[in-house]
Amino acid sequence: MESKSNEQNVIKLCQPDMERGTNLMCALANRKSIRTFKNKPLELQDLSDLLWAAKGVNRPESGGMTSFNSLGKKEVDVYACTPNGACLYCAEEHSLIPVSESNLIPALAGGQDYVMNAPLVLLLVATILYSTVSPEPMKSTLAPLDTGIVSQNIALFCAANTLDTVARGTMDVDTLKRELKLKDSHCLLLNHPVGYQE
Amino acid sequence: MESKSNEQNVIKLCQPDMERGTNLMCALANRKSIRTFKNKPLELQDLSDLLWAAKGVNRPESGGMTSFNSLGKKEVDVYACTPNGACLYCAEEHSLIPVSESNLIPALAGGQDYVMNAPLVLLLVATILYSTVSPEPMKSTLAPLDTGIVSQNIALFCAANTLDTVARGTMDVDTLKRELKLKDSHCLLLNHPVGYQE
Repeated sequence: MESKSNEQNVIKLCQPDMERGTNLMCALANRKSIRTFKNKPLELQDLSDLLWAAKGVNRPESGGMTSFNSLGKKEVDVYACTPNGACLYCAEEHSLIPVSESNLIPALAGGQDYVMNAPLVLLLVATILYSTVSPEPMKSTLAPLDTGIVSQNIALFCAANTLDTVARGTMDVDTLKRELKLKDSHCLLLNHPVGYQE
Repeated sequence: MESKSNEQNVIKLCQPDMERGTNLMCALANRKSIRTFKNKPLELQDLSDLLWAAKGVNRPESGGMTSFNSLGKKEVDVYACTPNGACLYCAEEHSLIPVSESNLIPALAGGQDYVMNAPLVLLLVATILYSTVSPEPMKSTLAPLDTGIVSQNIALFCAANTLDTVARGTMDVDTLKRELKLKDSHCLLLNHPVGYQE
């Protein structure tokens, strides 16, 4: 993934390779948290398939996705952050939209050194929705619930494709919100460092 | 799954069949919410593998599981409910512990008729944890986050094995809490009707 200078300069991703990886049962058997990463950028096909697995469109006719969304809202955004900058994944176009040229990995690491070795960190940003009927339960449960679903897709894709990852909540939220121009209604609960196995 | 008269009478489940089902990519491609179910009880092997996928032990030496748990806590319980009663899944023993002889499917349906046709409903019960440092964020985010992870394992297992399911939040929480002897700290966010495709 290259750094781009403006938001119009989108990065088109590769079509999902449906033949790759293990069966689901082996992915479940191999799922675990790993905190060591080869310091090598991901190939574009691997990055493309990882993002599609996380929250890609799997039914173009309806816009249906690989991840369930409470009430049909698509409220979890995935940011792909490398030392060269950060991009927002656009599921509908299966593309990456550059949003920052800063290296956000130190802010994502939040003081945990092992994250600094990862060539890529996926940041999951849930948008808190307010119901017209009962705002409090929606605020407290739907955003993290949908974050968990996307996180598990990432974890299983890595397990099925010999990539290392861990779901983690430690990060410098204030810096990330400022750099990514996020709002109060955005909720940063998890990020996933991802890399090839050492 | 047969109804059992006491909690000692556990139902031993079958070892996971690691060869079954599609690859992960096809499971992701086929993941969708389906609300029609053949009214036929699940075979024990299918039920066993579904529960192992949801939150089974995949690393017996460490107790590691197919589902990530925030802070390493195993706070999501899975109840398997059929017209014959309800059982709690014990991941460590890969067994079902009978906990109620009541048919809880009407309470799980919460007035939505399509659920009444399902031969099985999995109820996800998260235990709200209180941090010694900052109770509020843990209460509001970790239980639903971990529920989402288990839910996605269920959805993908069904997609990989031609079973129908949907993640849904509507249910009669008070009746379920009373029948299952749950506490205030138990949080009922989702259930999954599951059945063979019609």
